[in-house]
Amino acid sequence: MKLVFEKSKLLQAINIASKGVPSKTTLEIQECFLIDATTDIIKIIGNDLDLGVETIVEGSINERGAIAIDAKSFSDIIRKLPDEEIEIENSEENKVLIKSGKAKFNLSIKNEEEFSRLPDIDKTEKIVISQYTLRETIKQVSFSIADNDANKIMMGILFEVNGNKLRMAALDGHRIAIRNVELSSNYENKKIIIPGRTLNEISKVITGGIEDEVNIYITSKHILFEFDQNKIVTRLIDGEYFDIDRMLSKDYDIRVNINRLEFLSAIERANLLSHDSEKNPLTLLINDNTMEIKVVSAIGSLNESVDIKKDGNDIFIGFNPKYFTDVLRILDSDEVTLYMTNQKAPCYIKDKEETYVYLLLPLILG
Amino acid sequence: MKLVFEKSKLLQAINIASKGVPSKTTLEIQECFLIDATTDIIKIIGNDLDLGVETIVEGSINERGAIAIDAKSFSDIIRKLPDEEIEIENSEENKVLIKSGKAKFNLSIKNEEEFSRLPDIDKTEKIVISQYTLRETIKQVSFSIADNDANKIMMGILFEVNGNKLRMAALDGHRIAIRNVELSSNYENKKIIIPGRTLNEISKVITGGIEDEVNIYITSKHILFEFDQNKIVTRLIDGEYFDIDRMLSKDYDIRVNINRLEFLSAIERANLLSHDSEKNPLTLLINDNTMEIKVVSAIGSLNESVDIKKDGNDIFIGFNPKYFTDVLRILDSDEVTLYMTNQKAPCYIKDKEETYVYLLLPLILG
Repeated sequence: MKLVFEKSKLLQAINIASKGVPSKTTLEIQECFLIDATTDIIKIIGNDLDLGVETIVEGSINERGAIAIDAKSFSDIIRKLPDEEIEIENSEENKVLIKSGKAKFNLSIKNEEEFSRLPDIDKTEKIVISQYTLRETIKQVSFSIADNDANKIMMGILFEVNGNKLRMAALDGHRIAIRNVELSSNYENKKIIIPGRTLNEISKVITGGIEDEVNIYITSKHILFEFDQNKIVTRLIDGEYFDIDRMLSKDYDIRVNINRLEFLSAIERANLLSHDSEKNPLTLLINDNTMEIKVVSAIGSLNESVDIKKDGNDIFIGFNPKYFTDVLRILDSDEVTLYMTNQKAPCYIKDKEETYVYLLLPLILG
Repeated sequence: MKLVFEKSKLLQAINIASKGVPSKTTLEIQECFLIDATTDIIKIIGNDLDLGVETIVEGSINERGAIAIDAKSFSDIIRKLPDEEIEIENSEENKVLIKSGKAKFNLSIKNEEEFSRLPDIDKTEKIVISQYTLRETIKQVSFSIADNDANKIMMGILFEVNGNKLRMAALDGHRIAIRNVELSSNYENKKIIIPGRTLNEISKVITGGIEDEVNIYITSKHILFEFDQNKIVTRLIDGEYFDIDRMLSKDYDIRVNINRLEFLSAIERANLLSHDSEKNPLTLLINDNTMEIKVVSAIGSLNESVDIKKDGNDIFIGFNPKYFTDVLRILDSDEVTLYMTNQKAPCYIKDKEETYVYLLLPLILG
């Protein structure tokens, strides 16, 4: 094998393929990149078996071939090379020579035949979505997955297609995040669960705009995202997702409109009084025109009032402040609307069209 | 006590005074800032007893007084307040109220009488130096102090005044760094040892230019730096510094001129092959017009050649690469000159006027 690359192109491909490389595994060969130039194109593949990434990189093939090379060392070295042409070629047995300017690296390689490539995915049915929409939707629900694996399904994100509607949702037992997106065509119904952390990694690579598309293919075990020069495959989580429709209610007694950033800043200040270990409850005393925000901790207390518009009764209610900051940070409207019923019933944050619905359970105040 | 501040002014003072606050101590009161407004000026003091910082902050004194308040909580809170006026006043017993916009923090305070202020320093003799020069000089020698405290004196930096000459030096048993600076006046001879880490912290606060001055006062136990609105005091290290003049030699057999950045980049690339734990030797094979740089590790090997100008014999010599990168990173000349004698004798990096002299011991190659 003998390849020549521009540094910037190679580095970009490495950054994408890295998402598929495990940081630590028992299967050493998967800590490698597979650089595959056995055909007329050059592919770089990283695959930790839960998440596999394959990207095509521009470059000249002077001699065809494939190598498996430790991903971390290779990335570190390419990153530090001067901005010149990079030549990569098999030198001796089990060695590769990387040349750039006057620098010559001689690195060990592994047997590329042992490397597990991406699984083959059936491509008869395709779902198309804008890269921007997919990325934003992932961001808007993924923070609500559970952060420990007591329940596998809570670590996943629901991906549900119904005609031209896509619903993504995540929940952790204390809160639910739901986004409803309209697709440009009608598709067969699908309901799968994608591992949340993996989907988060994927969203970092899908950097295109509203006009750029992702093709999605779903099998019983995997989901494949194809976009630009990239293929990303992830395993699905087995099982049936929660019946979230049954958990939601349209009824409410109290509706509050509040400036999103004022509300967020006040809670962020309140959080200064709590150390990570002890989450002191955020209490909200909601009167006709103001919301009194209060947190008390060992360090001291914060009181702050924010102007609001309210329909319904006054209410005094407590929450884990993190649940509010998570939601308020990722929304981008100037104002948000809260819907509540009583001190022990969930609070909803949603827009009129229900493109987003967040359910937050209150804390029972002593 | 009742004070009013602009946020930016208060924050700047906090950032400076924080340098004196210990991250963890057995003396809880010293984890506080002392905010002292008992006279017509407002001072903020942080003091971990090895390093004490006192800074004057602009603000209105509506009522005189002093408080001791946990430095970390106070800093975190002030940083997050809106860009509005900040009011600080004693509220109840042992409490202080911090008001800004609609936010009201109520925080616990400690007994300010227990707080240890900066020691009194005799100011009869003064040394004056430019802030820029002092900061740069510290940066140029401090990386050579020993990183473990097997020898207290090796953790210090020599600060030696001889007439109008200041010499600062640091060494760790494998290398020596020396900077010679000309002062604008003549002073009485002084020879003290300043704790290296402390001096490094101090250099981060001395942000002024070449025209801005620092006044330095030295006693048998302390050194005081006075500049702008700030006072910084640090304890000295007891003992006699090494006789560095006896360690240096002016003789050499081989002189090499090399482009600093080309040399540095090559070594930085070589370092990619070594993990932090195992420092593989950097070997230099110096011929008439080129230096062949080589590192071999478990990951692979790097060969790179850099153009040089050389007087004297060819030489093959090995070093800890870190010692070279430390020096080459902080110099700013295009070219540097190396002086060597043989494989087992020190290598010197110095300029003609000896404003800087770096001595690096070679590694004995097996």
